Amino acid sequence: MTVSHNAKWNKEVPDIVVSRLPIYLRSLYILAGEGKEITSSQELAARLGLSSAQIRKDLSHFGEFGKQGTGYNIQFLRERLEHILNLGAVWPVALVGFGDLGHALVHYAGFVRKGFEIQAVFDNAPHKVGHRINSTLIIEDVSKIKESVRAKGIKIAILAVPLEVAPGITDVLIEAGIKAILNYAPTTLTVPSNVKVQNIDPIVYLQNMTYYL
Amino acid sequence: MTVSHNAKWNKEVPDIVVSRLPIYLRSLYILAGEGKEITSSQELAARLGLSSAQIRKDLSHFGEFGKQGTGYNIQFLRERLEHILNLGAVWPVALVGFGDLGHALVHYAGFVRKGFEIQAVFDNAPHKVGHRINSTLIIEDVSKIKESVRAKGIKIAILAVPLEVAPGITDVLIEAGIKAILNYAPTTLTVPSNVKVQNIDPIVYLQNMTYYL
Repeated sequence: MTVSHNAKWNKEVPDIVVSRLPIYLRSLYILAGEGKEITSSQELAARLGLSSAQIRKDLSHFGEFGKQGTGYNIQFLRERLEHILNLGAVWPVALVGFGDLGHALVHYAGFVRKGFEIQAVFDNAPHKVGHRINSTLIIEDVSKIKESVRAKGIKIAILAVPLEVAPGITDVLIEAGIKAILNYAPTTLTVPSNVKVQNIDPIVYLQNMTYYL
Repeated sequence: MTVSHNAKWNKEVPDIVVSRLPIYLRSLYILAGEGKEITSSQELAARLGLSSAQIRKDLSHFGEFGKQGTGYNIQFLRERLEHILNLGAVWPVALVGFGDLGHALVHYAGFVRKGFEIQAVFDNAPHKVGHRINSTLIIEDVSKIKESVRAKGIKIAILAVPLEVAPGITDVLIEAGIKAILNYAPTTLTVPSNVKVQNIDPIVYLQNMTYYL
């Protein structure tokens, strides 16, 4: 997977702009699914609750994507965004924690459709370790994380473990070469600057909304 | 539940500041769980990967919480943040969608611990409707949303349904009086300005990170 395009831009594009690109991409998939071939910053803006000027400005960080007055070709813009976001190949993913949430994540078809495949699952419960999830996945003991993640060349992990063990598991994941962690544990992880973390804690989102109620 | 405090500040505090308050609160719970009674903006900053100046500035929107040089009393700051975020009572929550994710959400103990209780569950699958989840919850048909949500006075909904049905369900939830939606469906919802939405789409977060890999 080439990173030359991104290497050029990494330092220049604000994180907040990058964070909106997957949302634009998601809208393009939905529009394509509706049979549309052309869209516009106005149409995307209306669907996303953003301003069309913001969408044009965000995309302008990465070049020209449409001609004035003719809108965006959906397939072209989709392919460009996939390239910018490094979505050219399937990313192997390690899942740590096979509780209710881990179970739901393993069975979520959206990952594979969007280029992410859970290729390793770890848990520390003796009655789960060795259990076959499907034709390719067997739950491994957490003590195997470093060995297994390295052997499989996995760079992305999903952390679905209790708060108490999250920091220790995070350290092991980083030693194993993980560079991006999707963190479902309800705590803030301490990681080196070259490791990315995104946090999903439903309580944080709910409390954010109750402020306004 | 009084909203007088928030009513005063609603217009003045930037959303980005509000979005960090639950993260501060979460850290306070963790610190208290470690037996600590006093913390500081420096300690919080180190744990959260933020600057201490930002934390002090965020909190200053809501008054004075600590004395220069003595840090914050954790219990006092926790109670103030709970008040600011309207967390004084248990919020009843409606869950729509009882697939793998809905199952995990219903069994997530974190909700009740943090003041959110799922008090209604809806699905459209005939073999699920009528199924008893626990001593108080029975899965209801989605056709009952309006009636049931209104009767129970529920203002917060968690949407864990497929993309295709999310817009229609959202309209029904809003008619039922829902004012805050935690949206797990992988699409952007169109809602009136007096309804808050927070989105949790793991693909969006993963793609945000692959940009940097």
